[in-house]
Amino acid sequence: MIRILGIDPGSQRTGIGVIDVAADGRCTYVHAQALKLLDAEDFPSRLGLLCEGLEAVLDQWQPQQVAIETVFMDKSATSALKLGHARGAALATVVRRRIPISEYAPRVIKQSLVGRGAADKQQIQHMVRLLLNLPEVKLQADAADALAVALTHAHMSATAARTGLSTALLRRRGA
Amino acid sequence: MIRILGIDPGSQRTGIGVIDVAADGRCTYVHAQALKLLDAEDFPSRLGLLCEGLEAVLDQWQPQQVAIETVFMDKSATSALKLGHARGAALATVVRRRIPISEYAPRVIKQSLVGRGAADKQQIQHMVRLLLNLPEVKLQADAADALAVALTHAHMSATAARTGLSTALLRRRGA
Repeated sequence: MIRILGIDPGSQRTGIGVIDVAADGRCTYVHAQALKLLDAEDFPSRLGLLCEGLEAVLDQWQPQQVAIETVFMDKSATSALKLGHARGAALATVVRRRIPISEYAPRVIKQSLVGRGAADKQQIQHMVRLLLNLPEVKLQADAADALAVALTHAHMSATAARTGLSTALLRRRGA
Repeated sequence: MIRILGIDPGSQRTGIGVIDVAADGRCTYVHAQALKLLDAEDFPSRLGLLCEGLEAVLDQWQPQQVAIETVFMDKSATSALKLGHARGAALATVVRRRIPISEYAPRVIKQSLVGRGAADKQQIQHMVRLLLNLPEVKLQADAADALAVALTHAHMSATAARTGLSTALLRRRGA
C-alpha cells in the first residue's frame, strides 16, 4: 500500500487530500481538508499558516509520495506571483522532508480522471467521489482538487508500473 | 543594537545580507552570501536548498528583523511564478520563526540608497560598500542587493523613529 498526499496550492485556500493506493490499484479516501489562509494578518503570515497546516497533515498521515498541480499559465503575472508564493512554500515544506514530489498539469489531471482535458470542476468532483466511493461526503472544491491530483498520481504510477514507461514520460504525453 | 537580515530572493540564486544597526543609526556589515540553487536536481529541491541555507543563516546570526524586496511586476507571468516560488519559500521560513518581515519595492530601495528611484546595479553596489565601509570586499550582486534591502530597512526604521510616521507609510511614500 502506498499513501499519497495531493496538494492544490493557493494563497487564499490550499486544498489537501490523502489517499491510500492498494497493490491492485484500488484507491481509498483517507483525509481531505482546505487550509483557510485569509484570516492571517498579512501575506507572509498566510504562507506560515500554509506550512504549519501542511506539516500537521504530514505528521499525522505520513504520506510516502506527494503530488501537486502545476500552474496553468493563462494567468496574469500578479496572480501567478501569488500562486507561486503558495506553491513555493508548500514545495519547500515537502522537499525538506525528502518526500518525492510529482507535478501534474491541470490538463493531465482532467484527462486522467474524466478522459478529456477540458473537464469542468463539477465533473472532477463527481469522478473524485465515484473513484473514492464518497457519494454523500461534502467536499470543498479545493479539497476535491487535491484528491484529484493524488488520484492522478496513483493512476500514473499504476500505468508506469504496467507499461514500464516512466511517470515523467506519461505526464508529458498526458496519458 | 538591532540585527537585520536582508533577502534578495531568486530561484537561481538568493542573496542574503546581515547588518547591525547601532542606536545612532550607524550600520555595520556582519555577513553576506549568495545561496546558489542551480545545482539542485529539480525545481522543488532548489526551494529546499533555499530554506536550508536561510535557516542556517538564521541559526548562526539570529537576526531580529527581516527585510525583503517586493517583486517588480514588469515581468512575464512565467518569471513572476518562479520568483514567487522562491520568495514564498523564504517568507514561510522566516514567518515560522515569528521574526517580523518588512517588504520594500525596488524603487524604494534605490531611492533610499542612491537618492533616486532609477539607480542602476553599480550605483547600488557602490553605496552598499560606502555605507558599510567595505571598499575592497568582493560582493556578489545578489549579496549586495540583500545588504541594500537591509540598509533600506535600517534607514526607514530610523526615519520612522525620528518622524513618528510608520514604516508602512514611509514605504508607500517612497521616503
